[in-house]
Amino acid sequence: MRAVTFQAPRELRLQERPSPQLESRADAIVRIDASGICGSDLHIYHGRVKIEAGFTIGHEFVGTVTAAGDDVTRVAVGDRVLGCYHSACGTCFFCLRGAYHKCDRMRVFGHGQLLGGLPGTQAEEALVPMANMTLRRVPAGVSDDVALFAGDVMGTGYHAVAEGGVRPGDSVAVLGLGPVGLCAAQIAVAAGASPVVAIDSVADRLEVARSFGAVPVHLTEDSPRELIRAATGGRGVDTAIDAVGHPEALDLAIRLARKAGTVVAIGVYAEPCQVHMGLVWIKALTIKSGHANVIGHVDRVLSMLEAGALDPTPLVTHHMPLEDAPEAYAVYDRREALKIVLRP
Amino acid sequence: MRAVTFQAPRELRLQERPSPQLESRADAIVRIDASGICGSDLHIYHGRVKIEAGFTIGHEFVGTVTAAGDDVTRVAVGDRVLGCYHSACGTCFFCLRGAYHKCDRMRVFGHGQLLGGLPGTQAEEALVPMANMTLRRVPAGVSDDVALFAGDVMGTGYHAVAEGGVRPGDSVAVLGLGPVGLCAAQIAVAAGASPVVAIDSVADRLEVARSFGAVPVHLTEDSPRELIRAATGGRGVDTAIDAVGHPEALDLAIRLARKAGTVVAIGVYAEPCQVHMGLVWIKALTIKSGHANVIGHVDRVLSMLEAGALDPTPLVTHHMPLEDAPEAYAVYDRREALKIVLRP
Amino acid sequence: MRAVTFQAPRELRLQERPSPQLESRADAIVRIDASGICGSDLHIYHGRVKIEAGFTIGHEFVGTVTAAGDDVTRVAVGDRVLGCYHSACGTCFFCLRGAYHKCDRMRVFGHGQLLGGLPGTQAEEALVPMANMTLRRVPAGVSDDVALFAGDVMGTGYHAVAEGGVRPGDSVAVLGLGPVGLCAAQIAVAAGASPVVAIDSVADRLEVARSFGAVPVHLTEDSPRELIRAATGGRGVDTAIDAVGHPEALDLAIRLARKAGTVVAIGVYAEPCQVHMGLVWIKALTIKSGHANVIGHVDRVLSMLEAGALDPTPLVTHHMPLEDAPEAYAVYDRREALKIVLRP
Amino acid sequence: MRAVTFQAPRELRLQERPSPQLESRADAIVRIDASGICGSDLHIYHGRVKIEAGFTIGHEFVGTVTAAGDDVTRVAVGDRVLGCYHSACGTCFFCLRGAYHKCDRMRVFGHGQLLGGLPGTQAEEALVPMANMTLRRVPAGVSDDVALFAGDVMGTGYHAVAEGGVRPGDSVAVLGLGPVGLCAAQIAVAAGASPVVAIDSVADRLEVARSFGAVPVHLTEDSPRELIRAATGGRGVDTAIDAVGHPEALDLAIRLARKAGTVVAIGVYAEPCQVHMGLVWIKALTIKSGHANVIGHVDRVLSMLEAGALDPTPLVTHHMPLEDAPEAYAVYDRREALKIVLRP
Repeated sequence: MRAVTFQAPRELRLQERPSPQLESRADAIVRIDASGICGSDLHIYHGRVKIEAGFTIGHEFVGTVTAAGDDVTRVAVGDRVLGCYHSACGTCFFCLRGAYHKCDRMRVFGHGQLLGGLPGTQAEEALVPMANMTLRRVPAGVSDDVALFAGDVMGTGYHAVAEGGVRPGDSVAVLGLGPVGLCAAQIAVAAGASPVVAIDSVADRLEVARSFGAVPVHLTEDSPRELIRAATGGRGVDTAIDAVGHPEALDLAIRLARKAGTVVAIGVYAEPCQVHMGLVWIKALTIKSGHANVIGHVDRVLSMLEAGALDPTPLVTHHMPLEDAPEAYAVYDRREALKIVLRP
Repeated sequence: MRAVTFQAPRELRLQERPSPQLESRADAIVRIDASGICGSDLHIYHGRVKIEAGFTIGHEFVGTVTAAGDDVTRVAVGDRVLGCYHSACGTCFFCLRGAYHKCDRMRVFGHGQLLGGLPGTQAEEALVPMANMTLRRVPAGVSDDVALFAGDVMGTGYHAVAEGGVRPGDSVAVLGLGPVGLCAAQIAVAAGASPVVAIDSVADRLEVARSFGAVPVHLTEDSPRELIRAATGGRGVDTAIDAVGHPEALDLAIRLARKAGTVVAIGVYAEPCQVHMGLVWIKALTIKSGHANVIGHVDRVLSMLEAGALDPTPLVTHHMPLEDAPEAYAVYDRREALKIVLRP
Repeated sequence: MRAVTFQAPRELRLQERPSPQLESRADAIVRIDASGICGSDLHIYHGRVKIEAGFTIGHEFVGTVTAAGDDVTRVAVGDRVLGCYHSACGTCFFCLRGAYHKCDRMRVFGHGQLLGGLPGTQAEEALVPMANMTLRRVPAGVSDDVALFAGDVMGTGYHAVAEGGVRPGDSVAVLGLGPVGLCAAQIAVAAGASPVVAIDSVADRLEVARSFGAVPVHLTEDSPRELIRAATGGRGVDTAIDAVGHPEALDLAIRLARKAGTVVAIGVYAEPCQVHMGLVWIKALTIKSGHANVIGHVDRVLSMLEAGALDPTPLVTHHMPLEDAPEAYAVYDRREALKIVLRP
Repeated sequence: MRAVTFQAPRELRLQERPSPQLESRADAIVRIDASGICGSDLHIYHGRVKIEAGFTIGHEFVGTVTAAGDDVTRVAVGDRVLGCYHSACGTCFFCLRGAYHKCDRMRVFGHGQLLGGLPGTQAEEALVPMANMTLRRVPAGVSDDVALFAGDVMGTGYHAVAEGGVRPGDSVAVLGLGPVGLCAAQIAVAAGASPVVAIDSVADRLEVARSFGAVPVHLTEDSPRELIRAATGGRGVDTAIDAVGHPEALDLAIRLARKAGTVVAIGVYAEPCQVHMGLVWIKALTIKSGHANVIGHVDRVLSMLEAGALDPTPLVTHHMPLEDAPEAYAVYDRREALKIVLRP
């Protein structure tokens, strides 16, 4: 089968790879119908996240089950399915506490040996371990484009809102309107939050946020702090979501949150940085961080996608054939796309 | 001023009463613009809830603050406000745990000496104790009809959904589509629940539920249990809300809930009754009951009303002048109305 | 190997059975060192819970791992282990929400085909499915007698306290001082609850409760309602635990709980019964029911047993050899024992 | 009456002040029997927290009610009471969400005009606003020394454990064994946590921690990270409490916490500082900060003190008469005392 492999920073190749085989009774094989390119794929593309040369990349996918081990009960051969971006063992200390994203034996698709040696899904076929965890049937009426958000980007948006403790009627600010931020804004609106203030400096993204029911605020042309103060009786928002992963975004989130509020730092942090702990302390904030527990959220996300309460369609800006993956990554790297869907 | 007073079962009168005066620094006086008739007013009307002859009734209201004590900080003279149906002290054991609806010194409008001796709001003016607790400004753009739901019926719907632990994407069944059930259904939808199955045997009410985004199911002509099983992978709903207050409704709610699910019995119970504890035990259910903690929810409810995420307008079927209150109660008693708004 | 088998109500037999073999990579085989007799075994003994003639019974156990499949990572051959009373799949809808006790594929040791066809542990050896879920290493210094409580009775006590939402300093009443009630009382004390009022009519059990730090109250010779009122400023307890499973116990628990409090009905219910929903409603109570989620609690219970914060030793009244199982059940049935430990 | 007043950094004076008078129906007057010196008093003493010259200081107190306004219901004239370190209004946005420590109208005893202009309690008498919030009866059998911890230091320890989401059987590390850290360690043990690892570099404090049931670990002579790894199966603790308020303590707390664990930064932060957000992100931590919500916890803390589950007596190292306050602060400043109790 054909697969998109990492060769070196900014160098990908479409290569022939052996078709995957079931290795355990918990595995399934999925014939890929669509696979998305995600912001975290760019970390590999740039070489910041290091993986082996020749490793197949990609972790967002929709496809059809072609084989399944005896222990696979939640999907069956022939089912149209979507995948979560990683598998989890279901029995370790962390899985037993529902922290599937911190599973001691988690394996992430397309992230090399360090994260479990699980070949990626930008390929014609994929081996899916712990299929009961990792796969879900695509509800009738949900398109490939929509479904592949459930196991990664929309799950991440859901995670941000859930970790933020957002209740219907609460106020929310989302900082950074990439795909994750836009999904977080859409979910916050769909969860009854109000107002949901969406902050960025790119006009198109602000426009998408507006179409999702959020209040768009330009980071520099508007005054986010004053607008939020005015919209919340001077208090600040109940929950501020940093979907950027930059100390300035975190700092702004800390300033936008009300006393005893919550800041969710869902954007990626890799280094130490300056945090205004004096503000965090005097405001008695809660800060929650980390990537998303999509396995913990996927059923609920699918339910909302099926109902149309969520619809990430506007985020899909490009469809390209699998063989154009190298070009697709270059387009994505130039920030010309929000979500590119590759089709084998 | 004129006030609607209880005289005897099914006998009300419009009487002249002295205008209320501030009694404490925490009090406000409100000139009533609109007051609703509520299901619990019927209990008084029928004589099931006993109050003194001559006592002013009514507990849903919107109006304008005409006087306020020195400790009143959340509203001011001239503000257009809505009221919660009861006041709370803010400092007792229960208030300190956020259970304002179980305040040791709560006073309910229009419910006689037993519940605090606080004259009702179906009058031209009302004394409002603990105004910081009881009153909120009506957001701009929110009509009287909409606002007066915030402090009672919509707050009760919110309570049912909140107590039910409903999370975005969860499945919900609402049994009984009176005003409270319809509000609960609307809030469940607005909170991202899906599906929200609304069950009743009155076609008009089912139609309102459908317009709110719920899935209408006829109690007897459809098969609620089978439909819910089909809609939830055979499991039952995450949360079942009994908005009726009858053992049969509770029993159905228990049967509709999934294993480890939640049943919220928001309908009024006054007596012992048969409950299938065997089912409750084997399904490991949580049952939550009691009237609503509207003071705990009112800010969030108002935020959703202001955003248009909630809109109870379709529930207001009648507007009548205050002097027609006796006729209005008769109409309501004949179940010809969902919500009647009285205007002085 | 030898095993205790059910033949007919009140008729058990020690029979020869084939030694169990690994059936899956997730299985382990345990050589049993000790197995307890539990109240739920009596339901089988009496024929109320129906199982096949010849089926091996028992579900509380401590032993040594003699074989383990490739997927077993949390224990290893040679480990001294204790078992939970059931296994769980780790991947179904309910396991993914942490409700392991409601797993769609749960198998209960020694409860016949209906509950998974898993032979019991009152035997010389046992097959343990999903060993990562079901087994834990016994911490050094923890005796067999203590350890075998972790996977059933003490886990049930923990469940009652956890479901009750008990926080340090909260007041708790425990109704019924069988092994589960006594464990619940001990855990409530160890969790910082105060006062913990323990109610029964058997002097010896009250004495054990007193030794656990609880306040013993005789059901009929004392006045539980008055004593609890006096101890809680007239309010009632924050959490009332019904460890009996009888409508009168549930009714008393409802009366002992404070407004907005919690009742945990951990005792077994099988039938519909009278519940004073009027009281439940007016007090705005939460009722939680069902058997215990021991897999969800076992790590924490073990940690407390290891620290000596919990010590169920006083509950072990009898040690008997496996071959005396028929006599042991007769003793237990005559209520002459709190916990009997069988040793092969 | 006599009162201890701030004059300038490191300069206090015992001055004559007019006796306080009731100003509102919610006020009480307390004749002070004992008042503690607290770490936050030192911030004033050092001039880091600026207050007016001549302002009376102190905020921990036990005494007797000598006058009470008409709205005061939870205590009465003649009652022996303890006080919380601040009052709260009970009706603002934050109080209604239970965040009494972030009350919009909170007043802190002895902290100058900026924090409400409320004279301190290191005096012979004190005006206590919102007495229903601020005062509680001292349970029979609880000494002054013990009781005055309830409204500040022990309440802060309780807050740390509660915010940390500590459940019975969870592992906890406490960094910094000043009075707050020692109280946090004692509460964690009393709440059933195990192990509770207490880290400091002062032998005496480690010894007190050991007497409280914690595992003492020397910050530099032992290896906290290795010891905790060994004690938690290599994972790290469920909850790490930074009771120091220094970036190095916070950094260590972040390293000691397990994946998906919680860090509570209860120590005081006033400035921005370096935080390893990369670690926070990859471990998916929750960080909670801020001073304590003692009004939210005081009933439960008192219940535990009354039961003897908590006993801070070993922390009281000095008793001194009020007139020796200047000397007492000098002793405290030289770190020769854990808790000094002043008596008028």
